[in-house]
Amino acid sequence: MAKKKTNTESNPKKSKNDVAVGVVGSGSFATAIVKMLVENCKVVHWCVRNEYVKGAIEQRGHNPTYLTAVNFNLKNLKLTTDINELVSACDTIVLATPSIYLSDTLDKMTCDYKDKVFVSAIKGIIPKVNDVVAHYLRDEFKIGFRNQAVIAGPCHAEEVAMERLSYLTVATVEDEVSAKLVDIFNSDFIKVHSSKDILGNEYSAILKNIFAIGAGIASGLGYGDNFTAVFVSNAIREMETFLEAIYEAPRDVNESAYLGDLLVTAYSLFSRNRNLGNLIGKGYTVKSAIQSMNMVAEGYYAADSIYKTAKEKGLKLPIVDTIYGILYEEKNAEKQFKKLTAKLN
Amino acid sequence: MAKKKTNTESNPKKSKNDVAVGVVGSGSFATAIVKMLVENCKVVHWCVRNEYVKGAIEQRGHNPTYLTAVNFNLKNLKLTTDINELVSACDTIVLATPSIYLSDTLDKMTCDYKDKVFVSAIKGIIPKVNDVVAHYLRDEFKIGFRNQAVIAGPCHAEEVAMERLSYLTVATVEDEVSAKLVDIFNSDFIKVHSSKDILGNEYSAILKNIFAIGAGIASGLGYGDNFTAVFVSNAIREMETFLEAIYEAPRDVNESAYLGDLLVTAYSLFSRNRNLGNLIGKGYTVKSAIQSMNMVAEGYYAADSIYKTAKEKGLKLPIVDTIYGILYEEKNAEKQFKKLTAKLN
Repeated sequence: MAKKKTNTESNPKKSKNDVAVGVVGSGSFATAIVKMLVENCKVVHWCVRNEYVKGAIEQRGHNPTYLTAVNFNLKNLKLTTDINELVSACDTIVLATPSIYLSDTLDKMTCDYKDKVFVSAIKGIIPKVNDVVAHYLRDEFKIGFRNQAVIAGPCHAEEVAMERLSYLTVATVEDEVSAKLVDIFNSDFIKVHSSKDILGNEYSAILKNIFAIGAGIASGLGYGDNFTAVFVSNAIREMETFLEAIYEAPRDVNESAYLGDLLVTAYSLFSRNRNLGNLIGKGYTVKSAIQSMNMVAEGYYAADSIYKTAKEKGLKLPIVDTIYGILYEEKNAEKQFKKLTAKLN
Repeated sequence: MAKKKTNTESNPKKSKNDVAVGVVGSGSFATAIVKMLVENCKVVHWCVRNEYVKGAIEQRGHNPTYLTAVNFNLKNLKLTTDINELVSACDTIVLATPSIYLSDTLDKMTCDYKDKVFVSAIKGIIPKVNDVVAHYLRDEFKIGFRNQAVIAGPCHAEEVAMERLSYLTVATVEDEVSAKLVDIFNSDFIKVHSSKDILGNEYSAILKNIFAIGAGIASGLGYGDNFTAVFVSNAIREMETFLEAIYEAPRDVNESAYLGDLLVTAYSLFSRNRNLGNLIGKGYTVKSAIQSMNMVAEGYYAADSIYKTAKEKGLKLPIVDTIYGILYEEKNAEKQFKKLTAKLN
């Protein structure tokens, strides 16, 4: 364990897969996904944000900004900044941009993508439509659920970079797609399980960011480990309530893709959602807390969307209500958490 | 939150309860419980380990070894080293010794205790009978479940000392006992909920110590946050399997008393069970790891008992099996965890 090797020459023991797979995005999780895929695939197509990022990777062999310790062998990569070039060249396209940038990217997609499989590694709401990626792809691009998959599970990109053992869940309704994805992601440091619960996995990945903001607020306000444990155990129950209302499926929310992902986000000091909450708990205004971070905290947008969906469905989600009030209604975090403590058990 | 006041003059707003309650034990959790009770009770009887501890508390106003920052007003305490004196004077007796010392203490009990209520705050197996406290009290002392209760929930004593908000669950089948316990424990910094699941709460408090040893081993071996999240999400499912097999009851293992307690133990760097595991993961032998700690890691004894009970019942508990093998069969931690990773999901 905890190997320090980061040169992704990829696994020499294994014969390489020649599946045509591409990754869209150049943040830390996108970079981690490319690293996972070069373990198994001869070539990974990679659509990055702009010519600067492309040139930097070509010159230095690593992403200039994120996971800079991960060195790629350029013969394994096919870099582009053109979404149409990537989509045309690939059968399987992994979307890994921040959720707020996805529509900018996909709006440029004019090529034929009818039979392609789109895999979302995005854990957030698309602000333009105030909805999850699965619905956005279906409604705006007519990409049916049979051509979709979701990657979920507790998976900090930084640990993938260090090849620390991580587990992913691939959710798709198509067995063939599932088998292919399991095959291209499984490696010495990534264990992949499959699920059919596309919407459950996507919503849980979104909800957990809201709860991570809450765990951060609690910490910023001075609540301790005992309270955080109670908070998280209430959060997973709120998640279950929401998922059951939105999409009934045979699922156990204590599986890694749901509870595991919540835990890694709520307990990690590196989670940007938790950090945003922590600043707010310490007394920063929401606006100044957001401005002081140079990364996107997906949970901010998620709180608005999930709150409204929960209200429409008549769900009682005291944590979501509390976070929404603090983020969007200028309610005082200390007072709101004091009220919340009486609703937890 | 995070008040620094530790002088337990107790709540002046509230009129004091004159229930005859006593605490047995002088470790950190026993001291935290006395602190909780003096918030609400005029006098708390306290049976400590020996004359030295009794004299030190009388002289200094605080426990000489544990939670030394918690200052008591001596007029709220009735100290003794005689279990019979304490039991005779009290209607409600909270047992808070380490599990391995409980039988030494209770074997001296010769007074009449027929109508007393015994509340276990012990989170471990009684080695003498290799069983939980609830069964031990019933079988050895003929104390029926109607005269028993269990205190559970995520509750680090150190945080209680700092008056950081914590939640307790009181489990008892008798409504009257429950109401009384909720009343004497509830305070500005302790929120109490009730449950009827005595055995479920007691077993979960014991199981979580085994899982905390496992989380520690993983950390010592170099596994990261992503893996820990997967490990804990598997652990709560093993807990559910065990509890359902041992004692069927309407319960949600995601409530704070079960999942919350597991989280605070598995994630806290102050957990002695986690620390024991961490030493083993780093390569210490089990014997030397135990010797290097000057506190009792309850999970060590628990692993033996729970493993055997699970085998008798034919349960599949891969984490429990793994920890048992490492602790009792001299199996190599690194190899065992490598095997375990293939069984988690």
